[in-house]
Amino acid sequence: MRILLAGSTGAVGSCALAALKDKHEIITVGRTSGDLTADLTDPQSVAAMYSNAGKLDAVIACAGHTHFGPLIKMQPADFQKGLNDKLMGQINLMLLGLPHVADAGSFTLTSGVLDRDPIRGGTNAAAVNGALGGFVAAAAIDMPRGIRINVVSPGLLENSVTRYDGFFPGHRPVSSEAVRIGAVERS
Amino acid sequence: MRILLAGSTGAVGSCALAALKDKHEIITVGRTSGDLTADLTDPQSVAAMYSNAGKLDAVIACAGHTHFGPLIKMQPADFQKGLNDKLMGQINLMLLGLPHVADAGSFTLTSGVLDRDPIRGGTNAAAVNGALGGFVAAAAIDMPRGIRINVVSPGLLENSVTRYDGFFPGHRPVSSEAVRIGAVERS
Repeated sequence: MRILLAGSTGAVGSCALAALKDKHEIITVGRTSGDLTADLTDPQSVAAMYSNAGKLDAVIACAGHTHFGPLIKMQPADFQKGLNDKLMGQINLMLLGLPHVADAGSFTLTSGVLDRDPIRGGTNAAAVNGALGGFVAAAAIDMPRGIRINVVSPGLLENSVTRYDGFFPGHRPVSSEAVRIGAVERS
Repeated sequence: MRILLAGSTGAVGSCALAALKDKHEIITVGRTSGDLTADLTDPQSVAAMYSNAGKLDAVIACAGHTHFGPLIKMQPADFQKGLNDKLMGQINLMLLGLPHVADAGSFTLTSGVLDRDPIRGGTNAAAVNGALGGFVAAAAIDMPRGIRINVVSPGLLENSVTRYDGFFPGHRPVSSEAVRIGAVERS
């Protein structure tokens, strides 16, 4: 398959890339590096990127950041960060990618565990993950041409433990190997 | 209790107002009418409204619109509408209201059925509802001073059937009376 993978250098995306690259043609998309570049938060940038991508069988979105911090200090602008970056980034990639994906192709978005198993300081991520989950449930019945859409909701990855140190008490990290196997099974 | 109710003229809010007004002091908030006015999408407007609201025991948000329409025609700007209006409106009301709500007080947000029981054309509402559900699950464990937060997720209301005509095939409308009873039980 010809697969566009956004966020291939991130914690989840690097596992997906390792799992898929030997069996498929992967076009990586990053903000500043990759086969193609795009600012996923900017619809015009995403549209320009797709115009250079050619016909695709699948699009995988592993990109996006959210705000972490206590609710009592959170300002609307903090909350908006996750909406602009992780949520609208993946939504832009999906909506603008639709004409470029082949019949019976697929979109795979990436949310995360925090809407189902919340942590303190994770309200913005929980909202974004919940939004992606709700969106995909509805989009799955609204897709044209037999195109499928799924969302993968990983737990804390081993390769993210240092970055989120202290934020995920009681969460058992998922090994990168397990993510790679999951990606192969999904592909 | 002294309760601030945003969106009291809407389908859900009018039921909540009818259920609560005889037993509590209700301060209604609308965009252009009510005891106080605010544009919930504008943090400065919400902050100004709260500065005139006095001390509150509870805040109820029944406000906000989303975009309805087929995914194949949806543009990022369409999707952004629901994020700006229903999602950030309720988030602004919660985040900026926190200092004004008494110890052990409560916030009640309003989502909707479409993230759990999706319909075609409802992807934006499903995302916003999922975001509110995820947010509240995480916020509930991140609240200071014993303040509670809940989200109510109503189905299609009888008083909204005409407005959403044709969008909710197979959904059995919920009577306004049932919503009023629910509001009383929650209060």
